[in-house]
Amino acid sequence: MRKIVLVRHGESVWNLENRFTGWSDVDLSDNGLVEARRAGKILVHHGYTFDVAYTSVLKRAIRTLWIILSEMDLMWIPAHKTWMLNERHYGALQGLNKAETADKYGEAQVHMWRRSVDVRPPALDKRDPRYAGTDPKYSALRESEVPLTENLMDTEQRALKYWHQTIAPAIHSDKKVIIAAHGNTIRALVKYLDDLSDEAVVDLNIPTGLPLVYELNDEDLSPVRHYFIEER
Amino acid sequence: MRKIVLVRHGESVWNLENRFTGWSDVDLSDNGLVEARRAGKILVHHGYTFDVAYTSVLKRAIRTLWIILSEMDLMWIPAHKTWMLNERHYGALQGLNKAETADKYGEAQVHMWRRSVDVRPPALDKRDPRYAGTDPKYSALRESEVPLTENLMDTEQRALKYWHQTIAPAIHSDKKVIIAAHGNTIRALVKYLDDLSDEAVVDLNIPTGLPLVYELNDEDLSPVRHYFIEER
Repeated sequence: MRKIVLVRHGESVWNLENRFTGWSDVDLSDNGLVEARRAGKILVHHGYTFDVAYTSVLKRAIRTLWIILSEMDLMWIPAHKTWMLNERHYGALQGLNKAETADKYGEAQVHMWRRSVDVRPPALDKRDPRYAGTDPKYSALRESEVPLTENLMDTEQRALKYWHQTIAPAIHSDKKVIIAAHGNTIRALVKYLDDLSDEAVVDLNIPTGLPLVYELNDEDLSPVRHYFIEER
Repeated sequence: MRKIVLVRHGESVWNLENRFTGWSDVDLSDNGLVEARRAGKILVHHGYTFDVAYTSVLKRAIRTLWIILSEMDLMWIPAHKTWMLNERHYGALQGLNKAETADKYGEAQVHMWRRSVDVRPPALDKRDPRYAGTDPKYSALRESEVPLTENLMDTEQRALKYWHQTIAPAIHSDKKVIIAAHGNTIRALVKYLDDLSDEAVVDLNIPTGLPLVYELNDEDLSPVRHYFIEER
């Protein structure tokens, strides 16, 4: 039996301001810093340790990971950062206030954009300053790989590609893995691991800063059980 | 012409307590945190940016790097951690107070241990709790690679091995490189780059938290010039 731990980053500044974030690279709020430290302390308390870490190239996830590794005295383990674990790209909604967007387009439309599996928000224009293709973080990507908007299936596709190429082989080679990522990349991994239907994933919400443990079958990494761990 | 930046970590808790550190994994002092932030601000101020970072597996160097990358908005770049950039192993002196050690062995002996090129401090015993071979950080090393003590030549040998295998190829492939390391690994790299004599390196002291820039020839990475950068 193998165990992996998934952690959604703590609250970000834009969670606090109620804005759509996606690939916008905003930092943790003060509360988010506290959540990350708590996640680290919980993992120490329950005797977890890790050999390798994976995270996105967005600072709210990286900082969450750094704080966890620091609390766990594991700053020295390899920590791989990849755009493929980035939050879902929210297209032209990135940076907009969620309440204002709901006023403009209606609650139902916003709920569709946020929670449905196959609906994409309006796409960014490549000349938009928010376009990721001009950000040095993404300079190694082919133009066709740089998203203008994504639905959950798009996010799932790239996250699972990274899972199969990189994370699953590490788990198979007996590495203890922690993944610090985002609401939608964790939803995508959970959907895959638990083979959830598109309908089931709509109402799946991942809490911030709570370590989610998956116990996986040795052979095929199919899940045996999963649970959140909390302070006693 | 290619530029690399070397930074010695900020003050550690044991610098403050005047103890021999070596591979002991002690954290930055409050002043060390300030020095690291200042190094990051200096690099931003002078317009530096990096594609890849290298550091040791010791937290005082890693935390210095993390703070610098955070200040520079470069948390997303790959950061490779290797024992080959660790501080010189100080053998059985690790953890001892420097003044007490000087009282016991004499100033001249301590100066020899600290600054000479070829004298090793007394070796650790493998049953000593300070022996690195039982630390999970070093579990990938062969037993023969785990030092019991080192002189500067030993440190130089492993640091240069990593330089030739990993860092130099990255510089040749046009990556902008930062190395956050330790007094003796930076001395070893400077000795190699500037082809210093054993005598010249004895009095070479690398200040903490000040970015040291080397401009290197495109062809063979021989140094054109080097300088510290500071706030204006």
